[in-house]
Amino acid sequence: MVDTIENQSPHQVVIVGGGFGGLYAAQALGKAPVQVTLIDKRNFHLFQPLLYQVATGTLSPADISSPLRAVVSENKNTTVIMGDVRDIKPEEKKLIMASGEVTYDTLIVATGVSHSYFGNDQWETVAPGLKTIEDALKMRQRIFMAFEAAEKETDAEKRRAWLTFVIVGGGPTGVELAGAIAELAFSTLKRDFRNIDTSEAKVLLLEGMDRVLPPYTPDLSAKAEESLNRLGVTVQTKTMVTNITDNVVTTKQGDKVEQIPARTILWAAGVKASPMGKAIAQSTGAELDRVGRVIVESDLTVPGYPDIFVVGDLASFSHQNGKPLPGVAPVAMQEGQYVANLIEQRLAGYTMPAFSYVDRGSMAVIGRNAAVVDLGFVKFSGLLAWLIWVFIHIYFLIEFDNKLIVMLQWGWNYWTRKRGARLITGDESMGLIGVDSNGEYYSPKNTKSPVEV
Amino acid sequence: MVDTIENQSPHQVVIVGGGFGGLYAAQALGKAPVQVTLIDKRNFHLFQPLLYQVATGTLSPADISSPLRAVVSENKNTTVIMGDVRDIKPEEKKLIMASGEVTYDTLIVATGVSHSYFGNDQWETVAPGLKTIEDALKMRQRIFMAFEAAEKETDAEKRRAWLTFVIVGGGPTGVELAGAIAELAFSTLKRDFRNIDTSEAKVLLLEGMDRVLPPYTPDLSAKAEESLNRLGVTVQTKTMVTNITDNVVTTKQGDKVEQIPARTILWAAGVKASPMGKAIAQSTGAELDRVGRVIVESDLTVPGYPDIFVVGDLASFSHQNGKPLPGVAPVAMQEGQYVANLIEQRLAGYTMPAFSYVDRGSMAVIGRNAAVVDLGFVKFSGLLAWLIWVFIHIYFLIEFDNKLIVMLQWGWNYWTRKRGARLITGDESMGLIGVDSNGEYYSPKNTKSPVEV
Repeated sequence: MVDTIENQSPHQVVIVGGGFGGLYAAQALGKAPVQVTLIDKRNFHLFQPLLYQVATGTLSPADISSPLRAVVSENKNTTVIMGDVRDIKPEEKKLIMASGEVTYDTLIVATGVSHSYFGNDQWETVAPGLKTIEDALKMRQRIFMAFEAAEKETDAEKRRAWLTFVIVGGGPTGVELAGAIAELAFSTLKRDFRNIDTSEAKVLLLEGMDRVLPPYTPDLSAKAEESLNRLGVTVQTKTMVTNITDNVVTTKQGDKVEQIPARTILWAAGVKASPMGKAIAQSTGAELDRVGRVIVESDLTVPGYPDIFVVGDLASFSHQNGKPLPGVAPVAMQEGQYVANLIEQRLAGYTMPAFSYVDRGSMAVIGRNAAVVDLGFVKFSGLLAWLIWVFIHIYFLIEFDNKLIVMLQWGWNYWTRKRGARLITGDESMGLIGVDSNGEYYSPKNTKSPVEV
Repeated sequence: MVDTIENQSPHQVVIVGGGFGGLYAAQALGKAPVQVTLIDKRNFHLFQPLLYQVATGTLSPADISSPLRAVVSENKNTTVIMGDVRDIKPEEKKLIMASGEVTYDTLIVATGVSHSYFGNDQWETVAPGLKTIEDALKMRQRIFMAFEAAEKETDAEKRRAWLTFVIVGGGPTGVELAGAIAELAFSTLKRDFRNIDTSEAKVLLLEGMDRVLPPYTPDLSAKAEESLNRLGVTVQTKTMVTNITDNVVTTKQGDKVEQIPARTILWAAGVKASPMGKAIAQSTGAELDRVGRVIVESDLTVPGYPDIFVVGDLASFSHQNGKPLPGVAPVAMQEGQYVANLIEQRLAGYTMPAFSYVDRGSMAVIGRNAAVVDLGFVKFSGLLAWLIWVFIHIYFLIEFDNKLIVMLQWGWNYWTRKRGARLITGDESMGLIGVDSNGEYYSPKNTKSPVEV
């Protein structure tokens, strides 16, 4: 099942997904004696940890994306295919794409996760999540449109609903979104409107557990909540969301049920595995965990299939301390690199120990000057944490041109508190660019036709 | 009909359109003793002369856009409304918007033009034009998707069609697009593909007149054509387009009819007035010119309505030399400023001479190092022309943060020949992000459903 380097035709490694897991595997195999095929639906790698900055008007999509072909163009052994993998036939070592097929000797699946509404998929249209560029632009449109709608609204109660921003989920994404929206309302946009005072906006962060950033230590969670409060965010913990419509969020805190009128509701609460998880389970008999991730062996292979690896958010790896590794970029990067090394070692006739994640710490940014960092041996918050966060994020942005531009954009935003990328763009399908006299969104192309949001 | 400064309530100036004409009028009125209301469908000013750089993957939309509210936030007398003006009632001095109405004392209409297909509106879906951010993203998607499709295509003839780019119209936009696509194919993307040689691409620029850049002098047109040829663009003049389908352009050059197989066809040929032109004509009896622009008096007012001004591309002003002024940014800027001054003078009881355009020259960029500049007293081309073009465009970018970023992005692209913003984004409605096995575009969300392009 495993080729060796002496074989005639080079060993074919196929990687599905150009996120952190897939791309780091591809880069680590760039000089290896194998043929690499990198398949992604999109033509770019997306630096997902900064997606919330696109959603809140600081960065442009291109600032946090690198064309996949450009990233690997120096790797002579690597071919990039823009394609949509739909299924896998492990016995034939074949992938079925929307157009055509690809065969592999070794397969690395790194297709990640999308957001989950815990069985309430109808919430998706009213409470967008944040996984793709399109998601971020949709959020950006909603957020800035809400201020425009409030400016026009004469009814005080309706205006309050337009100025209420509810973020569901107090993990890193939710915390970062809430902080950025608070900065927008209470600082950036303050002098831009005439009928509303944007500082009357309410930014509400809802979390089901007893504290924000539940995976972090309690003292960092407390520090984060403090910083959020200082920015003007209202944090509400131990709160479950029981219903969402386009203008009301229903919450339950203990026995207390509350109806919160709000026109901008953002989802940062849960994830579910991409469809490749199910495809792998059905074709190999592999088990999936609660959110559909593939439960992998200690070397990241699918049980019984040493030629199929799963890395990144799609992998459920519990061999280290009994609970699955978190779905964050550093885990995906290390897994991708591990699998690349393992493939090279195997081809050379060697074996490798089980994968082991080296946790170099975790962090979340809350706003200008405010972040929390946990490096394991030391934890801190505030300006220093913010600087570390900035440094690490710039360091890992894959291409240098992006780094330079992003750094300057951040520097500029930091000093001026401006946000240049607050455009409301898109068309009907994306979520509409107008508000009619009833306060309904409408698309300017469809004369006066309010559409569902 | 004209108020004076002594009146109780301040004089209401309403400006429709936040392009160069409307925005320069608003800025010039920023300290005047009037109330200014600036209405635009979008929440940003767009620096249209650089739109082709978004379409070809150099700049991001936010780099060439400034939020309107931020631009005029220092003008205490100015209110911005994001709204869609649908009609005008000149006798009641009232504008009808998609939601609500606005009354004015003096009105400035600056809603510009969109592209025209000369009665062949069915060509719009196959040959997109370039007026909005969405247009530019659609073009960007088409251009980069074409290379992806060619990479996958095994049939040589079909591959050639994917690698053929036809730009219809040899004005500044057409010339700039053709130059940028040639640079992409022959330089930027050269090492990114494995199955195709992008330098086999054909970039064809079609022009109906006997030379490109027909409004310029013949020697500059010749210089521009030389530069285009050097970049690898095939220029075909005296050529009319008689039909366009999604994979064939039919041309007629004298008696010679030709069918050119091409999958990427871009429209840079004609303009038509925005609907406000018709609304003004119907309500005031004003005459429209051939493309629907309002024929204005020598002070840019609508005949018989001294309280209604039309500026920018929507105005047809022929009082200077018998033929209408060209639809370019400098004309719009000067018209906007003139009208603002006129309004202030009137309120103070003075009159002003007729509008007179000061032509400071024209220019077009062709590619890296190559541009043509005509300053009237001197004409030149090449690197110096390119540097002047760069300087002037950066100088006029309205907000400093954009200037800095754009300058750096250009510098970076110039030295590296990279283009970081070559993302294929958007969804179904925008024009689809995949190519199926038949070479048809499809949207990844709709499983295997090829859609019309």
